[in-house]
Amino acid sequence: MIDYKLLEALSAVIDQGGFERGARALGLTQSAVSQRIKLLEARLGQPVLVRAPRLAPTETGQRLLNHVQQVRLLEYDLVDTLPALGEGGQRMRIAVNADSLATWWFDASGDFGRQHEVLFDLVIEDQDQALSRMRDGEVAACVCASPRAVQGARAHFLGGMRYLPMATPGFIDRYFADGIDESALTRAPTVIYGNDDHLQHRYLAEHGVTAAFPHHRCPSSPGFLAMVRNGLCYGLIPELQAREAIEAGELAVLEWDTRIVVPLYWHHWRQGGQLLDTLTDHLLARAAQWLLGAETGAAQARRTP
Amino acid sequence: MIDYKLLEALSAVIDQGGFERGARALGLTQSAVSQRIKLLEARLGQPVLVRAPRLAPTETGQRLLNHVQQVRLLEYDLVDTLPALGEGGQRMRIAVNADSLATWWFDASGDFGRQHEVLFDLVIEDQDQALSRMRDGEVAACVCASPRAVQGARAHFLGGMRYLPMATPGFIDRYFADGIDESALTRAPTVIYGNDDHLQHRYLAEHGVTAAFPHHRCPSSPGFLAMVRNGLCYGLIPELQAREAIEAGELAVLEWDTRIVVPLYWHHWRQGGQLLDTLTDHLLARAAQWLLGAETGAAQARRTP
Repeated sequence: MIDYKLLEALSAVIDQGGFERGARALGLTQSAVSQRIKLLEARLGQPVLVRAPRLAPTETGQRLLNHVQQVRLLEYDLVDTLPALGEGGQRMRIAVNADSLATWWFDASGDFGRQHEVLFDLVIEDQDQALSRMRDGEVAACVCASPRAVQGARAHFLGGMRYLPMATPGFIDRYFADGIDESALTRAPTVIYGNDDHLQHRYLAEHGVTAAFPHHRCPSSPGFLAMVRNGLCYGLIPELQAREAIEAGELAVLEWDTRIVVPLYWHHWRQGGQLLDTLTDHLLARAAQWLLGAETGAAQARRTP
Repeated sequence: MIDYKLLEALSAVIDQGGFERGARALGLTQSAVSQRIKLLEARLGQPVLVRAPRLAPTETGQRLLNHVQQVRLLEYDLVDTLPALGEGGQRMRIAVNADSLATWWFDASGDFGRQHEVLFDLVIEDQDQALSRMRDGEVAACVCASPRAVQGARAHFLGGMRYLPMATPGFIDRYFADGIDESALTRAPTVIYGNDDHLQHRYLAEHGVTAAFPHHRCPSSPGFLAMVRNGLCYGLIPELQAREAIEAGELAVLEWDTRIVVPLYWHHWRQGGQLLDTLTDHLLARAAQWLLGAETGAAQARRTP
């Protein structure tokens, strides 16, 4: 059998972002951890991580991490029936997009977490990028916009998240007094979450704008909302997140009939064990409380592949 | 003079996270951008970026990016007096910690942004790490916990951000019915933001807990709050962020007299130009509305260097 002490050392170093921290997490000295990784590399005849420009696993290292992740998931089940084996608190590493974390995720998963005393280890990833974390074996499951499961995993449709273009009434007076057209949309500043966020581009394309447009960049879900509320720009905001601000009259919706809906899928390893299956059932039973039903989402998925 | 077309190509590729996107941002073909970067490397006799394991500037590349950033800041001033030169919308790249973005940042900077039509390009960075973004020349300014300015920059004290340990009343009944002591704190799950977040460790150390403790990990400011509100754990939350939840009785403060205050400093390049100086004055005049005064913060800075 593989020497899991070696894989555990690799996992701790990557997970904790450094040799010193990895060693601390394992209760070992840094030199002991280094030696384990060197031994692992000697056995494999190739490196498992690179140190520069930043610490990261090599392709081989990633395959090993993927394996460790799956073994850990299997251990959860065992611990369930043989509690003496466990260290208390089952850890689940999951990638979730920022807007889900800021809105429905904990309302939907909180019960499950409390009941099973799960310790969540969350990774924020754009809805289009989370899948690569699955592929790399860094997480046991993810919420993302792609319906296609990676090899060894399953994908389930959770529901659609609707985004609406919003701004303060003052901002609308200033930039959209003559209506929402191509000319106004190329002048009014907006905000994008980051390079992987194409929602704003989609919205503008629906209005015939394909050229550059003035935009802020803010990779923080509450920051994004605060920017719009402070009248710096208009922006596409999850309906779930802005309900109170709309009701209070602080924000107004530019157009209610846009159809920017991001379909969200739950991906998990097929051999992820009982606990992961339980979480899957739990989420599938509850997501509809916050997300749009299958039909809308699926229609949207077809429209914007 | 340096050929800025070459530096601009490097900056676009790093900034946009890829050659294809960088080219699109500049309105060039990918091969034109590649050629510019090759030419730059040929002139320097060394690489300016590495492509694996992820695209990143080399040390030399970073020095060039730093320079470009400073040149751009100087251009802002010029555009201010010669508007015809500008492309409209002055871009400012700033690193801010997630909790500031989620609470006071836009309330304090919104006026300034609207008035000067600035487009903010924000980078989220842990309060202890933002400074490395300054050093690497990736940002023009940052909000961070360190009072020490990097070479060529200035640092100003903004104020202290107070964190309080909070949980739902139900969670407190379950884990802290017998008080808040070492034994309860090693059993009750808590949450940390990420590997660089040591606030929880500080809090526990004040109670004599130095061993491992059960914790979730959630690198999202609203997710962190949602986790505590959903009764999954207790956590150290910025007082600013939880006021409403406390008033509504959803969250209770475990101890009001802990003194976990993070001092925040504003760092900016000394030769950053008039616009950056104006933002600096603006922030220094307003930060006290949300942050704790100089005395408390400075005392705290001394206590926890």
